Amino acid sequence: MSKLQFTIVMSLDGYVAGPSQSVDNPLGIGGEGLHEWVVALEAWRTRHGLEGGAVTPSSDVLEERVARVGATIMGRNMFGGGPGPWDDARPWTGWWGDEPPFHHPVFVLTHHPREPLELEGTTFTFVTDGIESALAQAREAAGGKDVQLGGGAEAGREYLAADLVDSMEIDLVPIFLGDGERLFDGLGTGNPRLVHVRTVEAPGVTHLKFERP
Amino acid sequence: MSKLQFTIVMSLDGYVAGPSQSVDNPLGIGGEGLHEWVVALEAWRTRHGLEGGAVTPSSDVLEERVARVGATIMGRNMFGGGPGPWDDARPWTGWWGDEPPFHHPVFVLTHHPREPLELEGTTFTFVTDGIESALAQAREAAGGKDVQLGGGAEAGREYLAADLVDSMEIDLVPIFLGDGERLFDGLGTGNPRLVHVRTVEAPGVTHLKFERP
Repeated sequence: MSKLQFTIVMSLDGYVAGPSQSVDNPLGIGGEGLHEWVVALEAWRTRHGLEGGAVTPSSDVLEERVARVGATIMGRNMFGGGPGPWDDARPWTGWWGDEPPFHHPVFVLTHHPREPLELEGTTFTFVTDGIESALAQAREAAGGKDVQLGGGAEAGREYLAADLVDSMEIDLVPIFLGDGERLFDGLGTGNPRLVHVRTVEAPGVTHLKFERP
Repeated sequence: MSKLQFTIVMSLDGYVAGPSQSVDNPLGIGGEGLHEWVVALEAWRTRHGLEGGAVTPSSDVLEERVARVGATIMGRNMFGGGPGPWDDARPWTGWWGDEPPFHHPVFVLTHHPREPLELEGTTFTFVTDGIESALAQAREAAGGKDVQLGGGAEAGREYLAADLVDSMEIDLVPIFLGDGERLFDGLGTGNPRLVHVRTVEAPGVTHLKFERP
């Protein structure tokens, strides 16, 4: 069966975004520092229509993820557009422009119904009946490949708490954000124990991979 | 000048101890899981009068620390004995028995005065006039070697906030404690930026080293 792999970028002090997140500054104060390593990669730049870039041990990590993934799940906050019902008059279409970099089906967790959004190469389906339904739909759509849980933190915690995560890779960035949105908060004790299976050290980031035993 | 190196064990979700810490259970619920990797090492067991043990990449990390350090600073909570004034009738002498494993001068940060405590090979000096005084005394006592800041979390945060930490090594253990005492909490933004200089991957732990640029 296709696995659910959770991948997320985290600061050394445990944040996935800095303080004062907003539509204008979705990563919060200092949060762009979390992504400097990936924006510098050729593997990332090519997928986003940009030239140049570096090849580092992170390149293989990224290529491996892309090759294995046939569908993505994300939380509403990561898709963006602010909380609450969707604005039909000025529909939010994500952060990624007319041709998002996914090129596979994406499932967005939300409390507010919305028709699917078809963009060049990527269709966003909005799922209102919970994380298990989203996972079932994503597995069906992935065509035998794995499903990536791309974030944000809240979606990650929900899938972890339900013990539905098969593998987790944290891209640990050695900066302090000092405040903001924590990845691991309120998990409580008695969590499923994941086993550390791999470390990849690269410029500006350490990739730490865990799997369910 | 001798450097201040901060070394501490942290769970994947950012805790240095689990919830419900007490004198009987100083590491809190689940906290002993943070130290399984080190207790299993021959390098640690020998220093604590125990036989057997494993040799892993962590062994070199430990030996390197021991060789470089001429004095240790620790917070009151790490020395133990509960908060508040010292009990002269039943003086607390630390967690480590008659012959503590340090074998160099140790400086304990406390608000409550106390005469120095001399045990076999280690003298504990209680410092009531602040972290800079403790650092100056420890540097003087270290005889040209480095000073180790052994924890706990609160002491670490105070030295980090004052930008007095020259190098920091986090022993990252891939367990979730879910709750407890966080290492990095309330740091606020604008923290000094440390540079990641080394990763050592070993059974049950990943050692992440950072230095002041």
